[in-house]
Amino acid sequence: MIGRIPIQDIHPTVDCGRRPAKAAAGETFEISATVFREGHDAVAAGVVFTGPGGVRGPLLPMGELAPGTDRWGVEVTLPTEGEWRFRVEAWSDPVATWLHDAGIKIPRDLDADLMCEEGARLFDRAARAVRAADCGPAGPAGGTAATGRPVSGKTPAARAARRPKVAQQHVCGHRAALQAVAARLRDPEIDPRARFTVAQLPETAAMLRAHPLRDLVTRSAPRTVLVHRRRALFGSWYEFFPRSEGAIIEQGVAPKSGTFQTAAKRLPAVAKMGFDVVYLPPIHPIGHSFRKGRNNTLTPEPYDPGSPWAIGSEEGGHDAIHPDLGTFEDFDAFVAQTRELGMEVAIDFALQCAPDHPWVKEHPEWFNIRADGSIAYAENPPKKYQDIYPLNFDRDPKGIYEEIRRVVRLWMDHGVRIFRVDNPHTKPVAFWEKLLADVHTTDPDVLFLAEAFTRPAMMRTLAKVGFHQSYTYYTWKNSRPDVEDYLGELSHETSHYMRPNVFVNTPDILHEYLQHGGVPAFYIRAVLAATAMPTWGVYAGYELAENVPVRPGSEEYLDSEKYQYKPRNWVEAEREGRSLAPFITQLNLFRRAHPALQELRNLRFHSVNNPDVICFSKRLPGAYDTATRRHGLGDVVLVVVNLDPHNTHEATVSLDMPALGLDWQAEFVVDDELSGESYRWRQDNYVRLDPHIHPAHVFTLRAAAANQR
Amino acid sequence: MIGRIPIQDIHPTVDCGRRPAKAAAGETFEISATVFREGHDAVAAGVVFTGPGGVRGPLLPMGELAPGTDRWGVEVTLPTEGEWRFRVEAWSDPVATWLHDAGIKIPRDLDADLMCEEGARLFDRAARAVRAADCGPAGPAGGTAATGRPVSGKTPAARAARRPKVAQQHVCGHRAALQAVAARLRDPEIDPRARFTVAQLPETAAMLRAHPLRDLVTRSAPRTVLVHRRRALFGSWYEFFPRSEGAIIEQGVAPKSGTFQTAAKRLPAVAKMGFDVVYLPPIHPIGHSFRKGRNNTLTPEPYDPGSPWAIGSEEGGHDAIHPDLGTFEDFDAFVAQTRELGMEVAIDFALQCAPDHPWVKEHPEWFNIRADGSIAYAENPPKKYQDIYPLNFDRDPKGIYEEIRRVVRLWMDHGVRIFRVDNPHTKPVAFWEKLLADVHTTDPDVLFLAEAFTRPAMMRTLAKVGFHQSYTYYTWKNSRPDVEDYLGELSHETSHYMRPNVFVNTPDILHEYLQHGGVPAFYIRAVLAATAMPTWGVYAGYELAENVPVRPGSEEYLDSEKYQYKPRNWVEAEREGRSLAPFITQLNLFRRAHPALQELRNLRFHSVNNPDVICFSKRLPGAYDTATRRHGLGDVVLVVVNLDPHNTHEATVSLDMPALGLDWQAEFVVDDELSGESYRWRQDNYVRLDPHIHPAHVFTLRAAAANQR
Repeated sequence: MIGRIPIQDIHPTVDCGRRPAKAAAGETFEISATVFREGHDAVAAGVVFTGPGGVRGPLLPMGELAPGTDRWGVEVTLPTEGEWRFRVEAWSDPVATWLHDAGIKIPRDLDADLMCEEGARLFDRAARAVRAADCGPAGPAGGTAATGRPVSGKTPAARAARRPKVAQQHVCGHRAALQAVAARLRDPEIDPRARFTVAQLPETAAMLRAHPLRDLVTRSAPRTVLVHRRRALFGSWYEFFPRSEGAIIEQGVAPKSGTFQTAAKRLPAVAKMGFDVVYLPPIHPIGHSFRKGRNNTLTPEPYDPGSPWAIGSEEGGHDAIHPDLGTFEDFDAFVAQTRELGMEVAIDFALQCAPDHPWVKEHPEWFNIRADGSIAYAENPPKKYQDIYPLNFDRDPKGIYEEIRRVVRLWMDHGVRIFRVDNPHTKPVAFWEKLLADVHTTDPDVLFLAEAFTRPAMMRTLAKVGFHQSYTYYTWKNSRPDVEDYLGELSHETSHYMRPNVFVNTPDILHEYLQHGGVPAFYIRAVLAATAMPTWGVYAGYELAENVPVRPGSEEYLDSEKYQYKPRNWVEAEREGRSLAPFITQLNLFRRAHPALQELRNLRFHSVNNPDVICFSKRLPGAYDTATRRHGLGDVVLVVVNLDPHNTHEATVSLDMPALGLDWQAEFVVDDELSGESYRWRQDNYVRLDPHIHPAHVFTLRAAAANQR
Repeated sequence: MIGRIPIQDIHPTVDCGRRPAKAAAGETFEISATVFREGHDAVAAGVVFTGPGGVRGPLLPMGELAPGTDRWGVEVTLPTEGEWRFRVEAWSDPVATWLHDAGIKIPRDLDADLMCEEGARLFDRAARAVRAADCGPAGPAGGTAATGRPVSGKTPAARAARRPKVAQQHVCGHRAALQAVAARLRDPEIDPRARFTVAQLPETAAMLRAHPLRDLVTRSAPRTVLVHRRRALFGSWYEFFPRSEGAIIEQGVAPKSGTFQTAAKRLPAVAKMGFDVVYLPPIHPIGHSFRKGRNNTLTPEPYDPGSPWAIGSEEGGHDAIHPDLGTFEDFDAFVAQTRELGMEVAIDFALQCAPDHPWVKEHPEWFNIRADGSIAYAENPPKKYQDIYPLNFDRDPKGIYEEIRRVVRLWMDHGVRIFRVDNPHTKPVAFWEKLLADVHTTDPDVLFLAEAFTRPAMMRTLAKVGFHQSYTYYTWKNSRPDVEDYLGELSHETSHYMRPNVFVNTPDILHEYLQHGGVPAFYIRAVLAATAMPTWGVYAGYELAENVPVRPGSEEYLDSEKYQYKPRNWVEAEREGRSLAPFITQLNLFRRAHPALQELRNLRFHSVNNPDVICFSKRLPGAYDTATRRHGLGDVVLVVVNLDPHNTHEATVSLDMPALGLDWQAEFVVDDELSGESYRWRQDNYVRLDPHIHPAHVFTLRAAAANQR
């Protein structure tokens, strides 16, 4: 049955509340609901969280998002990891109803005394309802409670004016003060108009916000928000093949693989570029049967190392390390060095087997058996993938599950807390739901990234059942409408359960935009990804603007590192000024310095009158300063990018000023953090961007007059 | 946990399945779901209904709505009233996977023998899985089972080709025939290519549709569809004040009220116009205190009858009949006469009281008491409505509920099976949910229409909690974008729980479009409502194009019938050619003759290159004729309306041909059922509409050549 005050369509909600919504520790997001009541009386709404420890937090008041929509919202921040539950509460607000009616009737002397008496009775009730628990600083447990800011359709200034100042008040004062309001409303010596003013004072309003008089209180069913560690939301990823780093290729001599020891020498440079996660393609033994040669040929040379995704040989399977890379001790040392540099290792988790994988001999029942008794290799007729045997998860599901669980936990025990899962969409969704829940129970810090380049239904469902991050279609979205639609969708429509990890390239994807756009294309795609999205990724070689495909029309690299060693001379490239590393460093350090860029749901696009130029902002509202009674700008980053890597473009950018926390008439200074230039801006602004000099502005904002900063 | 084959986002679903979706007996609607699986193997899906008697129906196969969307659908029709439950089933289709792969590999002689043997094993399994229950005519209970048509993105011709012919087959033949397919696939004497053809035959496909081989069968949670009687969906309503019909107004003499007996004389004319429901404003005693005079004045003349919505006097309340109208016997006779004419009576249910209402004396605790002890009248400060006391449902909710329940059941016992509820949005939603569920339990034929002219959240929620029909914003939607957006929303977005009843006017709403558009405006608004929406309504006087407001800018009628008797001379108007009654008759009879117009969810708009001209169609697909192997056109109505009541407009109409069940190149004849003219049409067509002659085309379609009909 519906509640006394209907509360409907609570957001975020995943699968009607059967699965948790997601958030990261410290992330700011909106909770909203449709709340309304019969007739004309005032309603109000709020959210109450119960934290992972079972402690119930304070009531976080909601505001109506836009007048007449019946849609109420509050921006909340959950400080700690774990399972948080919330309910939306709605209630009839008799004081607000009375204030509205009395405000019309008393000045017109309609029932003025009667209205004062009715108000006095409400303040009597409000005084009786004061609870000590609502008096202290918001929340019973200081910094561990949820905090919230009511959202409303009003201007920032109006919002600031009604921000509660609950923390400064205390219980004894409140009850007496409310009683005093009632007494004054009843004072026959005073004109009703004068009596009424006491009810309209800001102090009275503040007391009522701290101790609302609530009738017909109605509570929604609970919803769950699973709060993950911050790295689930924010991070800069760097992918490289350890076998390439330190590999020795000499004419006429068998090539020598890089090792964890030689690869580790690359780590300081990666850390210096500001990356947070080092992601390694599979590090396991590679099959020999049907091994692929250079450029994906079927005729390998004797020393071709094969694709790391063809996992398993007589040297072991998913629980082993390729002997060319080293030992578990070497791996542990690599993980430790990465951590010492402030980064962490993610490994690839590709559930498929080369024909030489130990599982093939030990568990032929885990694979598809053809009518002739042979094990079925992967096919997409008429194409054959004879180097790969897919697992059949419906044969001995328990046996397969236990073994995979063992493998995952083995790597977890070796310090791996992030798994990049290869093609999860070719394995049953229910398998992932079970495995990820299992890991989460004991190790909630372990993150899984889904590499599911497939249709939206599967991508979204994998996120719903437990993946912490998802690869995206970002590389294929290059035009302004595509970028706006897709990043908008990722930021708003699906952001409560699916977190994008936008790689600008991968060993499989060299988009034609990069093939044909020259070095400016690499700048453009990096600045878009790094500033619009909180998690972005780069596959090694991007710094060198590697852009030659294996053949025209292909997205595969020429001489792909998937099939051969590819040592690169990073130092020389940087010395010769051919490297984008300094630019990537600049981007990553800027991301670390600006909390607004570390959020997903705050992306807003602004209008630009040139279809080749895109403009967006990310804002994390600042706190209200009770001393100055002003609302801080908070952290705001404004980005303008020329999407055409070949030509200079001019445009007028028309800013959605409230999205920046500004009034429509504001003037301010924008500082380009890439070029160092500054401009005086207002709502409409001229830009000119030459892709060969600076394809993008990355602005921070400050007040126009120095003394207003 | 998610199922083996994910099944998500089932439509229709209301409040996550906590409340039933709605349908009417015989209504055609789509059930859809997102269904997909890991990897490349084929999936399929279907719907299984369990009827009100608990009998499980056949599997209704779904089709993918558009390639690559993972969205599957089937159009279903539930024949009888009551609570139907359905589940979506999804499964892996190994035969389809094999047919796809074998179709590529066998012609290329890749593993040809092996593929034939693998197919033979599947047909062995299919033969073993044949169940007698799946052999007979669809469904275990003949005409009482749900029937379905798979929906797909393919052309009508392609759809027709794959329509199942289950009913003609029988079990013994099927098992043997499937075994024969297996045997032929194994026949070493025949070339594999020739063997494979047997698996590709239409007969083989038909057998597999009747007896699908299903692996990994997954069932969704159940969903409920509440099937109401047909009148909930389709009907033409006529509203009139019985006191006006037969009232005698003579200069200098006290006016004489019409009665149920005199009003009944109007019923044959209403029936002749083709109306189905006669709706009467409140028929209860009217209060004297603060009674309103003519044109809503506060100074009534002695004989002013007052507003019927100011209910209650010393002569009784909601359970009484106004003595001027007659007795309960008169009312019963009126109801009986209405029924004899093939119509039924709806009465107004307005839960508010005049100060003289018996409840005020007997139950002052049901009202709001002011601080001075008086009962609060209705207010919207500074406006006062002293003739009305609103009930307070939070004081003695049980007492109020029981009394209202008694009143409703009293009228039900007097033959009232439709209640038009006045302002339900000023009473608690939870009250309605309880009351309507209560009535539904014993009397599922009783219908409630919500007159909630309020914001969307409330309107929709009232529909969700049990109202069978809802008043709409139709009168305020007069431009083409407004009509397209709003009627599109009503037909598609909310139609699974909210059924619109579009009145073209009401005693409260004379829209300025009618005030200023002359008689053509009345034609235009009637043809739009009557052809686009299955339930429409007319308030008496519309036939006479009454269009004078009480003052400029008001939507109230001059000399509103709400405050005075308003006898009209219908016969004279018709004799003088001033009446729209013949046109309304034509519309209503056309509605009765065309089942496509009796459906809500089949409205489709077509493009027109003139913003003053609108074009839409309604289609009920015809059955597949197994004899001719052709898919009938079904019932299709195509409407083109000039929305400008002042000027002639020309336009080119560009038809969405598949929406009409036609191929893009089809040519056909349209017969205008209003004017009698016929035209030869194709995709793009010229129209010219003079609002003073024919503001609209209402077309039926037939094949261009007589022998193709």
